[in-house]
Amino acid sequence: MTGLAARLQAIIDGVQPLDSAAMAAARERHKKLTKPPGSLGRLEDLSVQLAGISGSARPRMERKAVIIAAADHGVAAAGVSAYPQAVTGQMVANFLAGGAAINVLARRAGARVVVVDFGVATPLAPAEGLVSRSLGAGTMNLADGPAMSREEALTAILAGVDVFDAQHAQGLDLVAAGDMGIANTTAASAVVAALTGVPVHEVTGQGTGLDAATWRHKVAVIEQSLERNAPDPADAVDVLAKVGGFEIAGIAGILLAAARARVPFVLDGFIASAGALAAVRLCPAARDYIIPSHRSVERGHRAVFEALAMEPLFDLRMRLGEGTGAAMAMQIIEDAACILDEMATFAEAGVSEATD
Amino acid sequence: MTGLAARLQAIIDGVQPLDSAAMAAARERHKKLTKPPGSLGRLEDLSVQLAGISGSARPRMERKAVIIAAADHGVAAAGVSAYPQAVTGQMVANFLAGGAAINVLARRAGARVVVVDFGVATPLAPAEGLVSRSLGAGTMNLADGPAMSREEALTAILAGVDVFDAQHAQGLDLVAAGDMGIANTTAASAVVAALTGVPVHEVTGQGTGLDAATWRHKVAVIEQSLERNAPDPADAVDVLAKVGGFEIAGIAGILLAAARARVPFVLDGFIASAGALAAVRLCPAARDYIIPSHRSVERGHRAVFEALAMEPLFDLRMRLGEGTGAAMAMQIIEDAACILDEMATFAEAGVSEATD
Repeated sequence: MTGLAARLQAIIDGVQPLDSAAMAAARERHKKLTKPPGSLGRLEDLSVQLAGISGSARPRMERKAVIIAAADHGVAAAGVSAYPQAVTGQMVANFLAGGAAINVLARRAGARVVVVDFGVATPLAPAEGLVSRSLGAGTMNLADGPAMSREEALTAILAGVDVFDAQHAQGLDLVAAGDMGIANTTAASAVVAALTGVPVHEVTGQGTGLDAATWRHKVAVIEQSLERNAPDPADAVDVLAKVGGFEIAGIAGILLAAARARVPFVLDGFIASAGALAAVRLCPAARDYIIPSHRSVERGHRAVFEALAMEPLFDLRMRLGEGTGAAMAMQIIEDAACILDEMATFAEAGVSEATD
Repeated sequence: MTGLAARLQAIIDGVQPLDSAAMAAARERHKKLTKPPGSLGRLEDLSVQLAGISGSARPRMERKAVIIAAADHGVAAAGVSAYPQAVTGQMVANFLAGGAAINVLARRAGARVVVVDFGVATPLAPAEGLVSRSLGAGTMNLADGPAMSREEALTAILAGVDVFDAQHAQGLDLVAAGDMGIANTTAASAVVAALTGVPVHEVTGQGTGLDAATWRHKVAVIEQSLERNAPDPADAVDVLAKVGGFEIAGIAGILLAAARARVPFVLDGFIASAGALAAVRLCPAARDYIIPSHRSVERGHRAVFEALAMEPLFDLRMRLGEGTGAAMAMQIIEDAACILDEMATFAEAGVSEATD
C-alpha cells in the first residue's frame, strides 16, 4: 500500500457509526414536545439523524460552509457541453465576487462559501475565499484513456480531506460540497454508471442544456470511455481515476472527512452525488452522515438515490449544481435542529396530551 | 344583498389579475443571470409569480407574518379527535409564550406571529400578539345541524380581511395563515368534500392521530353532516356556514384581503387549504396569489391541490398545521426573490454565455 492509500485507509477507519444514545434521547424529547407525535414527519427524523451524527441530543447547526469544488475536464474537448471550458474559471471568479446563485443561497442559509481549485484549466489569481489544491489544468479526456492516474485520484481525495479539516478547525456544524466544472456531468454519469451498473443512457442527462443529438453524442462518449478504460466497479478509486474528475474525487474526500469529524454532509446535485457514492463505496459507514437535499433534473440522480437508499428532501426541478440545492436544504436542516432544541414540552407549556 | 355580503363582494371585485409586465421583466432578467436558462427550476417560476403578484420586477420578501387562526368546533363533542377541546386554548397560550413549533419556524423564517381568536371555547386573557375577533365559544356541532349561520360565516370572512389589513398596514411582503382548533380536520374535510364532490373517505385523514375505528367514525360523522345540512357546492359561503369553522372562514378572508393588497399568500396544510379553496370559489382571481408550501399527510390535501391545479413545493410528511409548512416555504420563497434580485448578470460577471 502506498503512503497515499494508507492515509486514505486511516481516514476510512476513523469513521464511526452514529451515536445511538444521542438518537434515543432526541426521540424521547420529541415525544414530550407540544405537537402530536410524529406530526413534523421528516423534520423529526432529520433532527434524530443530526443527534446521531453530532453525538449531541440537542445539536445546533449554526456554523455552516459550502465548499465549491472546481476543476476542468479533458472531455470538454469532445463537445459534450453547451458552454466553453473558459466558463469554469469565469464562474470561479463570479463565486469569489459573490454574484453567483450559490452566493445568494449560501448567504440566505448563513453559510460561508469556500472555493477550491482542484484543477481549473484557466490560471486563477490568489484571492480570499479561494483554496488552491490544483492537480493540473483539468483531467485528460476520458473518452481516449484514463482521466487521471490512481495516484492523482488518491491525491484529489486527500486534498478534499484537507480542505474539510481546515474548515472544521475554524468551527463547523454543517457542510455541503458544491461543484463547478464544464463537462462534469459527463464524468459524473460515467462514475455513476460504472459504480451502479445502470445503463449509460439512464444516468446521462442534458447537463446545462443539450439538444437531443448532442445528448446522444454524450451517451456515446461515456459508453466509449467505459469500454476503453474498463474501470473496476468494486474499486471506487479506480472508477474515479479512469472516468471521474478532480473535483468529484475531492468531494468524495470532503464527505469522508466530514463523517470522520461527525459533521453532517449535505448532498447537493448529481455531480456531488457521484463523489458521495464513490465515498460510500470506499466507506459504507459514511452513508449515515449524508443528508440529501434535492432531486435534480439530471436523469442519473435517481440512480444515485437508489444506490444510497435515500430519498431527497425536495424536488424543485433544479439542475445548477454549485451547492445550490444543498444550501437550500441547510435551512430545512437547521429548522429541524431548532425544532428539537427550542420547542416547549407539554409540561412546560401546560398543554394536555392525547387521550388513548 | 346584506351589508356583509356587499362588503365581501367589494373585496372580491378588488382582486386584480397578476401584473404581466412585471412578470415579463422578471423573465427577461432571469435570462441574463449567471446560470443556464431555467436551471433553477421552480425557484425561477416562483420569483416570476412574486413579480406578478407584487407588481415589481425585482420584489423583496422581507416583512413576513404568520397569522394563526384559532377556533373551536362543536363537532369535537362527537369524539373525532385524539385531543380534548381544552387543547385549543392551551395551544394559543403556547403560541403566545413562543413555545410551539410555529414559533420556532416563524422565527427561523423571519416572520412575526399573530394569533387570532375567531372563537376559542376557553376564555382567553388579552395578550400581546393576540387579536380577538371571537364569534363565540366554538361552532355548533355540524353533525346535528349548521356549524354557524350565513351571517356568522360572512362575519368570520370579513374578520379575516380586517386582520390581514391591520397587518398589511404595519408593512407586509408575504403572509401565511395557520390554524389551531381541535376537531378542525373534520370541518375541513367536510368543506373540501362539499366543494369538490370527492367522496368523504378520500378527503378524511387521521387528524392528529386516530386509530382505524375512530377514523371510520369520523367519516360517518362527516357524511351525516353533509346529508343533514346539504350545503350548496356552488355557494362557498353556504358550505363554510353549514360544515366549516370560524377559523376556516377567517383564513378565506385573509387570502381574499392578501390578493386585493397584492401580497403573496403562502398556503399551509389541509385546514388552511380548505379555507383557501373556499376563497378561490368566491373569487377565482385569488388563486394566482397563492403560493403552495407542502403536501400534508392529511389525505384530503391532494384533492385540494387538484382542485386548485397546484403542485406543492415539498412533502416532508408533516401534518401539524399552525402554519408550520408555510413558514418553512417562506424561506424558499425569499430564496427565489433574492435569486432574482441579487445574482450577477453574465455581462456584470464577465461570464461567457452558452453556444448554440
